[in-house]
Amino acid sequence: MIPTLAWTPEGVRFIDQTKLPLEESYVLASDYEQVADVIVTMVVRGAPAIGVSAAYGVALGALRSNAKTALEFASVFEKICARLAGTRPTAVNLFWAIDRMKRVFAGLHSSSASMKQVQERLLAEAHAMYEEDIAACKTMGAFGGALLPDEGGVLTHCNAGALATCGYGTALGVIRSAVEQGKRIHVYADETRPFLQGARLTAWELMADGIPTTVICDNMAASVMRAGKIKAVVVGADRIAANGDFANKIGTYNVAILAKEHGIPFYCVAPWSTIDTATATGDAIPIEERSAKEVTHHGGKQLTPHGVGISNPAFDVTPAKYVSAIITERGVLRAPYAESLKEMELVS
Amino acid sequence: MIPTLAWTPEGVRFIDQTKLPLEESYVLASDYEQVADVIVTMVVRGAPAIGVSAAYGVALGALRSNAKTALEFASVFEKICARLAGTRPTAVNLFWAIDRMKRVFAGLHSSSASMKQVQERLLAEAHAMYEEDIAACKTMGAFGGALLPDEGGVLTHCNAGALATCGYGTALGVIRSAVEQGKRIHVYADETRPFLQGARLTAWELMADGIPTTVICDNMAASVMRAGKIKAVVVGADRIAANGDFANKIGTYNVAILAKEHGIPFYCVAPWSTIDTATATGDAIPIEERSAKEVTHHGGKQLTPHGVGISNPAFDVTPAKYVSAIITERGVLRAPYAESLKEMELVS
Repeated sequence: MIPTLAWTPEGVRFIDQTKLPLEESYVLASDYEQVADVIVTMVVRGAPAIGVSAAYGVALGALRSNAKTALEFASVFEKICARLAGTRPTAVNLFWAIDRMKRVFAGLHSSSASMKQVQERLLAEAHAMYEEDIAACKTMGAFGGALLPDEGGVLTHCNAGALATCGYGTALGVIRSAVEQGKRIHVYADETRPFLQGARLTAWELMADGIPTTVICDNMAASVMRAGKIKAVVVGADRIAANGDFANKIGTYNVAILAKEHGIPFYCVAPWSTIDTATATGDAIPIEERSAKEVTHHGGKQLTPHGVGISNPAFDVTPAKYVSAIITERGVLRAPYAESLKEMELVS
Repeated sequence: MIPTLAWTPEGVRFIDQTKLPLEESYVLASDYEQVADVIVTMVVRGAPAIGVSAAYGVALGALRSNAKTALEFASVFEKICARLAGTRPTAVNLFWAIDRMKRVFAGLHSSSASMKQVQERLLAEAHAMYEEDIAACKTMGAFGGALLPDEGGVLTHCNAGALATCGYGTALGVIRSAVEQGKRIHVYADETRPFLQGARLTAWELMADGIPTTVICDNMAASVMRAGKIKAVVVGADRIAANGDFANKIGTYNVAILAKEHGIPFYCVAPWSTIDTATATGDAIPIEERSAKEVTHHGGKQLTPHGVGISNPAFDVTPAKYVSAIITERGVLRAPYAESLKEMELVS
């Protein structure tokens, strides 16, 4: 299994996703500040993975504290949570994970627990989220894998794989499950500029699993679709609004329009923790703007003329009308999503 | 003016477009083989520019020959034309230019001209094509500039600029003309993977002219459109079929679909030499597949895992139904293009 992140006695060990695929190296984050840094610098990325990473960051903050009780730790706890919540704005899983840790701590705080209890319970909660994430991916994989064709090309954008989760992946979990079901899938991976998660990460992890993969530039998707090579599109999500609009890696909206134009089903695959019913529509999702240097430079080499204007939003919003189904671990949702999301929330 | 290519007593001097924007260096092609090489390696690129380059290549072939008469030169002439025609398959301007040189030579051959006459007439024909190309760009610019809004964003893909022609540009000529007409245009330039003609060349030449430009990754186009920032799209063409389908840089078809989905006019700008009425539809246009290394590497650095599948078509075909108008130096054509193209061919 791909070790996206792993708890060790010294802290959280992350595979360095900025160095893949040519270098497989690891970064150890031994305190919560270092966890915040690996999230900001995208050593770890992917909505589910950064959620669990933040949870471990909170647990590490407790483990490294000299406080004696939950009461004494409370103000530092708030500071730790604020620091981790400030790392990236778009993926709601980050806030979901921190909120979950806050609820656990609130119980300990109100019962005046010892620091040892705080440490144990926060770490246990992070471990639980880690295990739940992998289980959710497997379940989504089974649901989504059944929707894929028996054979043919499936296009994916960015990396919604094992590297974006604690293992198995969301969109790539669906592909893995289809392959395990005996389906003959050929993956077309958008390279996904500017950070190249598709060319670097999706290609790397699918090759490791022996799943046939062709990397294409983002701008080749339409011609591959027109050639009849794509039977389905599967992507992940960073935040799904109450009406089914969703934010995901920049370029997802492009792919959604192209899929619609070619009559190709377009599936969004994400754990329930990605759903943010407090956000009414996609227009209300905050979109992170990242450094221009991600676009202007590669491998230390400048691509663009000095001083040219650059835009680098890390995400875009795909309106619900382009989405054939939202695949979660609770089940497969269909439009109208405002209703199906509310229904499934009540049932589960 | 940007010196894309220039005749000198020693041969054809090309600005090296593989080195822009950070290095402004020049390559001198002193015989036809060297001209073929600069076309293959994309030191010069852009359909109109490679057409005129090939014409100069033919003229250079005559100038470097030891033949005494047109009759003696004939078999070498055929070899020169075949070599230049074999450089790139998609842009029809290349074949149009060589055919034009062949017609000139056929007249000289049948009149048993001296080699001096052959050399003079072939060079004069190449010079004429050079001048005509710039004049055509200015005329297209005037026609197209009138269609652009008084202010707002205009998106372009690849480089259909001065660097793709002998000067002024096709799509960028339209933008230049609009700006000269006092329109306040902000250009959004798709970076255009894998060769980055937008990030490198379009950005460079527009900045040189002081036209406000923002470079975006190809996959950001849909979100910029959805934000209401794009009032029109202008692109060039490498070959326009008899029904109005056209081949252009890979990713043009993506942009065409996105423009349609957002109700944005989409203009194709190309000289008449790009129209190939012998090709019935876009499906019959040969699409060049280029080296995988253009996708897998940048600046000598490998991006993708070893051995992953790669697709690298240099062009795609945009069906005529996405095209709001085809802007040529003979006038602005509207759908149905099969009829308007035929009509304008007969009139002119």
